[in-house]
Amino acid sequence: MVVVMSPDATDQDIAHVVERVESVGGRAFVSKGVERAIIGLVGDIESFHHLNLRTLRGVAAVHRISDPYKLVSRQHHPQRSTVWVGPAGHQVPIGPDTFTFIAGPCAVESPEQTVDAARMAASAGATLLRGGAYKPRTSPYAFQGLGIEGLQILASVRASTGLPIVTEVVDARDVETVAEHADMLQVGTRNMANFGLLQEVGRAGKPVLLKRGMTATIEEWLMAAEYIAQRGNLDIVLCERGIRTFEPATRNTLDISAIPVVQALSHLPIIVDPSHAAGRKDLVVPLTRASIAVGADGVIVDVHPTPETALCDGPQALLGSELRDLAQVVRQLPKVMDRLDASALVRRS
Amino acid sequence: MVVVMSPDATDQDIAHVVERVESVGGRAFVSKGVERAIIGLVGDIESFHHLNLRTLRGVAAVHRISDPYKLVSRQHHPQRSTVWVGPAGHQVPIGPDTFTFIAGPCAVESPEQTVDAARMAASAGATLLRGGAYKPRTSPYAFQGLGIEGLQILASVRASTGLPIVTEVVDARDVETVAEHADMLQVGTRNMANFGLLQEVGRAGKPVLLKRGMTATIEEWLMAAEYIAQRGNLDIVLCERGIRTFEPATRNTLDISAIPVVQALSHLPIIVDPSHAAGRKDLVVPLTRASIAVGADGVIVDVHPTPETALCDGPQALLGSELRDLAQVVRQLPKVMDRLDASALVRRS
Amino acid sequence: MVVVMSPDATDQDIAHVVERVESVGGRAFVSKGVERAIIGLVGDIESFHHLNLRTLRGVAAVHRISDPYKLVSRQHHPQRSTVWVGPAGHQVPIGPDTFTFIAGPCAVESPEQTVDAARMAASAGATLLRGGAYKPRTSPYAFQGLGIEGLQILASVRASTGLPIVTEVVDARDVETVAEHADMLQVGTRNMANFGLLQEVGRAGKPVLLKRGMTATIEEWLMAAEYIAQRGNLDIVLCERGIRTFEPATRNTLDISAIPVVQALSHLPIIVDPSHAAGRKDLVVPLTRASIAVGADGVIVDVHPTPETALCDGPQALLGSELRDLAQVVRQLPKVMDRLDASALVRRS
Amino acid sequence: MVVVMSPDATDQDIAHVVERVESVGGRAFVSKGVERAIIGLVGDIESFHHLNLRTLRGVAAVHRISDPYKLVSRQHHPQRSTVWVGPAGHQVPIGPDTFTFIAGPCAVESPEQTVDAARMAASAGATLLRGGAYKPRTSPYAFQGLGIEGLQILASVRASTGLPIVTEVVDARDVETVAEHADMLQVGTRNMANFGLLQEVGRAGKPVLLKRGMTATIEEWLMAAEYIAQRGNLDIVLCERGIRTFEPATRNTLDISAIPVVQALSHLPIIVDPSHAAGRKDLVVPLTRASIAVGADGVIVDVHPTPETALCDGPQALLGSELRDLAQVVRQLPKVMDRLDASALVRRS
Repeated sequence: MVVVMSPDATDQDIAHVVERVESVGGRAFVSKGVERAIIGLVGDIESFHHLNLRTLRGVAAVHRISDPYKLVSRQHHPQRSTVWVGPAGHQVPIGPDTFTFIAGPCAVESPEQTVDAARMAASAGATLLRGGAYKPRTSPYAFQGLGIEGLQILASVRASTGLPIVTEVVDARDVETVAEHADMLQVGTRNMANFGLLQEVGRAGKPVLLKRGMTATIEEWLMAAEYIAQRGNLDIVLCERGIRTFEPATRNTLDISAIPVVQALSHLPIIVDPSHAAGRKDLVVPLTRASIAVGADGVIVDVHPTPETALCDGPQALLGSELRDLAQVVRQLPKVMDRLDASALVRRS
Repeated sequence: MVVVMSPDATDQDIAHVVERVESVGGRAFVSKGVERAIIGLVGDIESFHHLNLRTLRGVAAVHRISDPYKLVSRQHHPQRSTVWVGPAGHQVPIGPDTFTFIAGPCAVESPEQTVDAARMAASAGATLLRGGAYKPRTSPYAFQGLGIEGLQILASVRASTGLPIVTEVVDARDVETVAEHADMLQVGTRNMANFGLLQEVGRAGKPVLLKRGMTATIEEWLMAAEYIAQRGNLDIVLCERGIRTFEPATRNTLDISAIPVVQALSHLPIIVDPSHAAGRKDLVVPLTRASIAVGADGVIVDVHPTPETALCDGPQALLGSELRDLAQVVRQLPKVMDRLDASALVRRS
Repeated sequence: MVVVMSPDATDQDIAHVVERVESVGGRAFVSKGVERAIIGLVGDIESFHHLNLRTLRGVAAVHRISDPYKLVSRQHHPQRSTVWVGPAGHQVPIGPDTFTFIAGPCAVESPEQTVDAARMAASAGATLLRGGAYKPRTSPYAFQGLGIEGLQILASVRASTGLPIVTEVVDARDVETVAEHADMLQVGTRNMANFGLLQEVGRAGKPVLLKRGMTATIEEWLMAAEYIAQRGNLDIVLCERGIRTFEPATRNTLDISAIPVVQALSHLPIIVDPSHAAGRKDLVVPLTRASIAVGADGVIVDVHPTPETALCDGPQALLGSELRDLAQVVRQLPKVMDRLDASALVRRS
Repeated sequence: MVVVMSPDATDQDIAHVVERVESVGGRAFVSKGVERAIIGLVGDIESFHHLNLRTLRGVAAVHRISDPYKLVSRQHHPQRSTVWVGPAGHQVPIGPDTFTFIAGPCAVESPEQTVDAARMAASAGATLLRGGAYKPRTSPYAFQGLGIEGLQILASVRASTGLPIVTEVVDARDVETVAEHADMLQVGTRNMANFGLLQEVGRAGKPVLLKRGMTATIEEWLMAAEYIAQRGNLDIVLCERGIRTFEPATRNTLDISAIPVVQALSHLPIIVDPSHAAGRKDLVVPLTRASIAVGADGVIVDVHPTPETALCDGPQALLGSELRDLAQVVRQLPKVMDRLDASALVRRS
């Protein structure tokens, strides 16, 4: 930590800062400049936080130097992690050696629609099935998902297609139920800072897909992952899904730089959701290409057998020729990046 | 709703849109322009949503015309509402005729700190006490609040000072407990789109203080209020607390225009939180003045007897001369706006 | 300046930084922490910039501590400045003791429209007349202003009404001509970082109204003022006019906090443009009240005798009862803030 | 255009809108809904703008339907354009069939530094040389470029290396001089809305590289291109260089979606500047890969022989192994996208 004194701070003000730092066992190095002094702090950063140094007289600013997250940081865990998703005997990897393609409908609407979407996903090369049984919707009048019935549909579609299931949980009270049916628990963008949910998910014993909050900084996102990790679960995959900006041409702005930035800071895998980032199906293929090329560990995409009748996000769901284009991209481009298709490394033991 | 066709849409494409609209009982008015056609839709908007018109061939865009919220809209409820906070016999108004000053510590830390802060608040003119027993914190390593012990401290401070209590609830599972102790339930900025919590709070039978999400549009914020209202609770007060922008000089950017914008759209009262908006105590007094002058129905401010030792947001808490300045502002400026101090209208029956 | 080393920086890396700092006459104080070292730099900050310390091996980050602007900073000029606008014998103050109301049409369209607008402005209490002869427009097909003819109209309206003229200059090549006719040169939001224009305006010998760039930070805005000041002109008034955010309810988001923030950092006066911030006439009066209450030194507002036919920004121009409301606000509310009407202090010598 | 009436608009209000539209030769189609009426307008859109319909009684909103740009639109020019850069006998293409790699130093500092950087660029595969003689800098105390001396250095380096020159012009008064020396005129992010400069550049008879404004929407950016096109110059290449958001990890947020969005709306070529987008050299290679994969027509990258001593943006300049990595990417990845290296199609006639 670095404490920056204001130009009119007195020697007494400086001495008071030093004294408080030393009172909790830290050391303080004072550098007196022409205009102002700066004080470098060495010691246990948590104890410094409690000092509220910014409230002391003569203090202009306090800069944190180290990263505030630990368990998810790459600093003490330089090798990037692989997370395995699926039941024993069929575990799909998400990590640095593979490219994992996840697809499925935004919402589970019926057994037929779900199995049709799952078959579309599988034939396009997907190795994991996404689908929402609980939907967080901006309007209380919009379709909120089938709930437990949706989970049962997903479980039966897994049985018939062999695809492990990724599904969202929106309420801490549902975590146990969702974890019984799903192979991976998704925490959505609106819940990234729902700390009670994060902690519950951290205890559930299933891998977690943590979407970035609509306006979360990368640091806040990694702190949300830290909440999950702190409860003992390090099987976390991050998902960039666009941030909110002033640009109206796309629903969100895909922050493509976030992928290499996160990979430098954290050992966790990171994938991209081009469907929700853009909100337009014509951008899904080019953004998937960009995601693969930038080094993402996978993508998660909306597909639907009949977008015209979809109860959720129809305009971004792929089918037909668009899906065929996507299938070709995810089959060929990862090789250029020296990545295997996730299906090649499924753990079957 | 208005459907904009793309320039290359065919007559058949247009006919298909019309047919679908009519299939759910709506009417469609086609205006053919030089370059493209537009189609005006008349009928039940909810049924139109399910048509997914944006997925049809030849459709370039679909514009919604009406507001998506109903219960909180001013359209069918032109008179602005007053919300009453407190136990029978001591109910404090928040609404168009008064200016309500809420103050207290960011977090409840101990009985002594809370009662001291409450006395500071009361002597500065506050009529409601704020204080957090459950704290949503970005870091899992930060102080998370005293929980139920904090609620008991707040209840006992209410008993000794007479100030009704406003306190945050962060988890749907805690709503019942918090509602037993508190007079008003606060939903924080990170939980504005936690729909499970909103619904639970809507059922709790206590007034709600709904903070704006860090990057929520005004429309999304009113939709969050609609979630609460839909469960039967219209005793909702909105709280503008700053939005996230690129400007680093303040923690958030106080969207002062949101106050008149919301008052034109909704009948709900709206107050301002200048402490969290700015994150700097030197801005609390000028932003409070601006809030009163723009027409806000109240403010909520952090005060703390010893900011140096505060476990949460010490740098923005007021005391001493700053608090005296604030007291003077909230006593005098509302009169210029033809508003009474909330204490003058307390319902004591 | 503070240099933060990365955790894997070697002693040699640290020594190399120290050596480079000392090579330009600076001193470097090293604080070695548990995880990493930080180095405090003391000396001439300009010489440090040329070292490109961020490019050295082992350097993680470089933090600037001092403000990068000097002439406009309040640090060495603690008393807030007053800028005088108008010809000798009729100079209107903008500064800390007064509240200055500037009004007029967005664009000068004809002699009649301009004189009518000027009379509306004057009778509402304005002491300076705004009006654009050169208009920067997003579309090349939109009305671009009357140019020199517009300047002549403004000059003749000044002669007949006595109101000094504030008008925009958009091209460095026009500065001399505009300065011959106008009393104050406005630099618009799109040109805040047009450094050639800033320098030309700095040489023109007339006061300058510098609008904030649509997405400029406060620091960048003060640096733009520094460009003008560096050419010898300190008669600069800043104008907050809203920043670009994700909120669509208003054209821009008025950053009301910027007023006290700027007043703490700089001695220059600062006013607010509520018309362009909101883009809606119904918000002009409440935002003017907020601006006065937060401590702004004035406002600049669009008025037009017939908004229906305005060639520019008609929807935000006031007339009739709205203008009367505004007149009442600017006459009464500044007194509450202990400010005189600017007309009371006009320099007539 | 669509006019949305407010719920309380009267039949007379509607009739007044219709009458005004018809007064300029347009037709108006009224659709009366349950809550409100909407009016579709057909006819000459420019004439409708002058009606200021938003100022009429009972009008709630006016939505534009068509794109406001024409010359740069893809609507009447479906085939994507190629722009040729360089003197007769050595013209390098930028367009849909090729991938063009532009590299060079941020600023021209000396003949040696420039020729060294040019050789680095050429050996890494660049076919055009970038380098700034006029530098727009946030601080008036920072290096502002060598001016005309810099242009002469660039011209002599072109003579010795054969690389055509891309260089920035920041002032309308310099356009003629810069156009005499350079092969392509760059308009920087701060000048995207400097309309006088755009018009001058539009007359200069040289291709233009138009960077996106830091917070310009895609529509505003295309309108800026329209300004240039309107003066008779359609040899415009757009350059995405990141937009301003709340995320501090990168200097700007590269809006990768803008590339396919622009390609759908406009026939103009579009390239990416990963160096300025990120402000960090470690992100240049991954962002270049993403740019190629998303379908960009080229990239422009900072290289410098000695970043430690660079007078501008040293921390983002590549050299050594990073540059070799980049060279490999730009040589191989475009083939996967079915694009030729620009050098393969140079016009030598």
